[in-house]
Amino acid sequence: MTQRVAIIGAGPSGIAQLRAFDSAKKSGREIPEIVCFEKQDDWGGQWNYNWRSGIDKYGEPVHSSMYRNLWSNGPKEALEFAEYTFDEHFGRPISSYPPRAVLWDYINGRAEKSDVKKHVRFATVVRWVDFDESTNLFTVTTEDLKTGQTETSEFDHVIVGSGHFSFPNVPDFKGIETFPGELMHAHDFRGAERLADKDVLLIGASYSAEDIGVQSFKMGARSVTYSYRSGPMGFDWPEGIEELPLIDRFEGSTAYFSNGMSRSFDTVILCTGYLHHYPFLPSDLALDSPNNVYPDTLYRGVVSENNDSLYYLGAQDQWFTFNMFDAQAWYVRDIILGELTIPSPSEQRESIDAWLERFNAIETAEDEVKFQADYIRDLIELTDYPMFDLDEVTRTFMAWKTDKKKNILTYRDKVYRSVMTGTMADKHHTPWLSELDDSMERYVSAAPREKLEDLASNEHSKSSKA
Amino acid sequence: MTQRVAIIGAGPSGIAQLRAFDSAKKSGREIPEIVCFEKQDDWGGQWNYNWRSGIDKYGEPVHSSMYRNLWSNGPKEALEFAEYTFDEHFGRPISSYPPRAVLWDYINGRAEKSDVKKHVRFATVVRWVDFDESTNLFTVTTEDLKTGQTETSEFDHVIVGSGHFSFPNVPDFKGIETFPGELMHAHDFRGAERLADKDVLLIGASYSAEDIGVQSFKMGARSVTYSYRSGPMGFDWPEGIEELPLIDRFEGSTAYFSNGMSRSFDTVILCTGYLHHYPFLPSDLALDSPNNVYPDTLYRGVVSENNDSLYYLGAQDQWFTFNMFDAQAWYVRDIILGELTIPSPSEQRESIDAWLERFNAIETAEDEVKFQADYIRDLIELTDYPMFDLDEVTRTFMAWKTDKKKNILTYRDKVYRSVMTGTMADKHHTPWLSELDDSMERYVSAAPREKLEDLASNEHSKSSKA
Repeated sequence: MTQRVAIIGAGPSGIAQLRAFDSAKKSGREIPEIVCFEKQDDWGGQWNYNWRSGIDKYGEPVHSSMYRNLWSNGPKEALEFAEYTFDEHFGRPISSYPPRAVLWDYINGRAEKSDVKKHVRFATVVRWVDFDESTNLFTVTTEDLKTGQTETSEFDHVIVGSGHFSFPNVPDFKGIETFPGELMHAHDFRGAERLADKDVLLIGASYSAEDIGVQSFKMGARSVTYSYRSGPMGFDWPEGIEELPLIDRFEGSTAYFSNGMSRSFDTVILCTGYLHHYPFLPSDLALDSPNNVYPDTLYRGVVSENNDSLYYLGAQDQWFTFNMFDAQAWYVRDIILGELTIPSPSEQRESIDAWLERFNAIETAEDEVKFQADYIRDLIELTDYPMFDLDEVTRTFMAWKTDKKKNILTYRDKVYRSVMTGTMADKHHTPWLSELDDSMERYVSAAPREKLEDLASNEHSKSSKA
Repeated sequence: MTQRVAIIGAGPSGIAQLRAFDSAKKSGREIPEIVCFEKQDDWGGQWNYNWRSGIDKYGEPVHSSMYRNLWSNGPKEALEFAEYTFDEHFGRPISSYPPRAVLWDYINGRAEKSDVKKHVRFATVVRWVDFDESTNLFTVTTEDLKTGQTETSEFDHVIVGSGHFSFPNVPDFKGIETFPGELMHAHDFRGAERLADKDVLLIGASYSAEDIGVQSFKMGARSVTYSYRSGPMGFDWPEGIEELPLIDRFEGSTAYFSNGMSRSFDTVILCTGYLHHYPFLPSDLALDSPNNVYPDTLYRGVVSENNDSLYYLGAQDQWFTFNMFDAQAWYVRDIILGELTIPSPSEQRESIDAWLERFNAIETAEDEVKFQADYIRDLIELTDYPMFDLDEVTRTFMAWKTDKKKNILTYRDKVYRSVMTGTMADKHHTPWLSELDDSMERYVSAAPREKLEDLASNEHSKSSKA
């Protein structure tokens, strides 16, 4: 009997899984029946911009934490698919830090080319998953959000690709319940335009804080203050951006910091991270982990230690993204196709422990990138996913970090070389800091004449502000 | 064997159900085993203020649509419990329109007195409910949000008291995806303080729009614009508040109305209502209805036509609230105790159709209040819940409407007489429009001397603004 596989989510991970099976099919292998459940109306996961916040049009939690003005905060050369390059998609070199719409177009391009849309049930949410030990089958209960109709269906394998940057972690702060200004989690942030002339506080010191703060600066915030718990990001901030330690309490619109300082704010954005949250899974199947590069209980980072037929894609904290999801998806595919086997529980545990030992010894960001590169290499070596120069990507990450350190406001104007094609990225026609149109149309348009001069010097028009 | 009853939600409806069983127990009747699942840390439902919006601290949709400055928008004399009066709770007359904290205190007072907290599992969300036709039992799967632990348990009856003002209805508007100002649904509104000097647009013409708009005015908004679909609210608005027809589109921060007018706004609040949304129920058990005073498929407004052991409390649009939930809860209790019976499916349908016929003939607000009064009377006549003067409450509702019509900014300074105790409400020490402290402490404090003079004339300090 044909096996049945459920994929939960059609974001970059779910699409990687669809494409992995498609690739096997094109090479003549027989593939199982696949159903991918996607609660949004379109695929792309985080890369689907949704103007709504909190709850979506179907009454479900909004999936995406995307904002209008998001541009990639890492070089595209580090996330490129090894089997579908930017050159293939765009037909010409583009810059290294494209805006959201351009990355969505790239993901969508591969997906459309692969003829896998037929497997996706859009606007369909997974309500509950049960596993029956006697039959070794999963019962997946879903709701068609357009009709309200519930359906239950059995599957041999379940692949969780719903991501872990969708359910905000929202800690409490003394007095925050009466903060009179605008207050939101980064998950609900949709654009910084209205923060012009505002005093903005970002609680957090990771990527959300960094980028939303810099966006706010770009859009003319009067001041941007970061509040960190463990340590500051430590960039060479321009005048108007500052890092302070943790909030002790709020009184009205004033925040008091642990170093005794206080400031009044118009807007507070909690950049306090996200939860691994799988409301459709019973506790013995739901991954419970902090956000890190090696979540415990996942063999080879994907197979649930509690159930050999349950897999997680992209559950790691991510340096590598799209190509890591691919490496995972190809590996999961080959397990399901019976071409790879999962070792005994004790051997799984041994493998996990070995990786965790190395994980726990990580000291620097570079260690962590190398760790993730090695993790991906280990997976790719097992399948026919095209191997790529992971050491060179690691060097690209290090160059990125250096460029950011040099200037957090201009690092997105830098370009890198693709390890997939050798193509050098093209400098974008407009420096990021002065580009206020984030659309695909604008991005692929010919360079506006007046901007070319700016670009020549690579100095941005707003640098006088700093 | 003892029957088992699951109550979903410990808001005013769930507490009413707990109290109904408690009352039977105190009168010597044997009651079933009761488990009430409440996803929040405390009871009170909507009346629990949560500073978070969108997603709560457990990763679940925030239940309450409450804002800091909410005061009852209807007279408390219309919602008073017939078996636990305001006089009993406060020991002295209070005003007719108390702030949130005071109403929460009242609900909590009855609940605490009833010794029913032991039945409530707080911070526990219902994930999935299944009904087994062969055993006539419900399987209720829950998650302890503090531990992540999933549990499954069987029940003879399920009572849904999760409410229908929690999942926002968020329609689309052309161009809204790039509106650069603050944008939220009323569900996520927590306070109007920051709307001072802002141009505020409220889309909608029902209670959320009315009250949030008036709150914005109270807090000093530069302008308040309502946009209606069917018709304007038509109050005698002060200068600074205005009603315009439906939005045609947004372009940047400018809204274009269907009458050709356009305005620029800082803030848009979608007061576009809520969905009946029961993500824990399969489609054959989930109520699917618009928000109205007689949802189809509920016999006597509570018994699911599809399942005699499934009940909904408070599923109606509400003029009456707390005392209606009581009437329903007492009725459901007596069905479960076997003291009342549910007629055959065809008789249920006949009854529903008869009510629907009358419902469809409703023409005025007064008709609708009378309809709901009759509905409640019909229920109370079947149980030992104390009957009260529903005609007099209807007259109170009509007086309220007249007072609002007279002055939407001062109607909350009016007082009414309790139909339960005959007590005349006490005028509050401070007119609503000039009261900026909504706390319980402030409310029950002695009248500040300087405010008594204001009160004497019943003119508010800000009336010069109008």
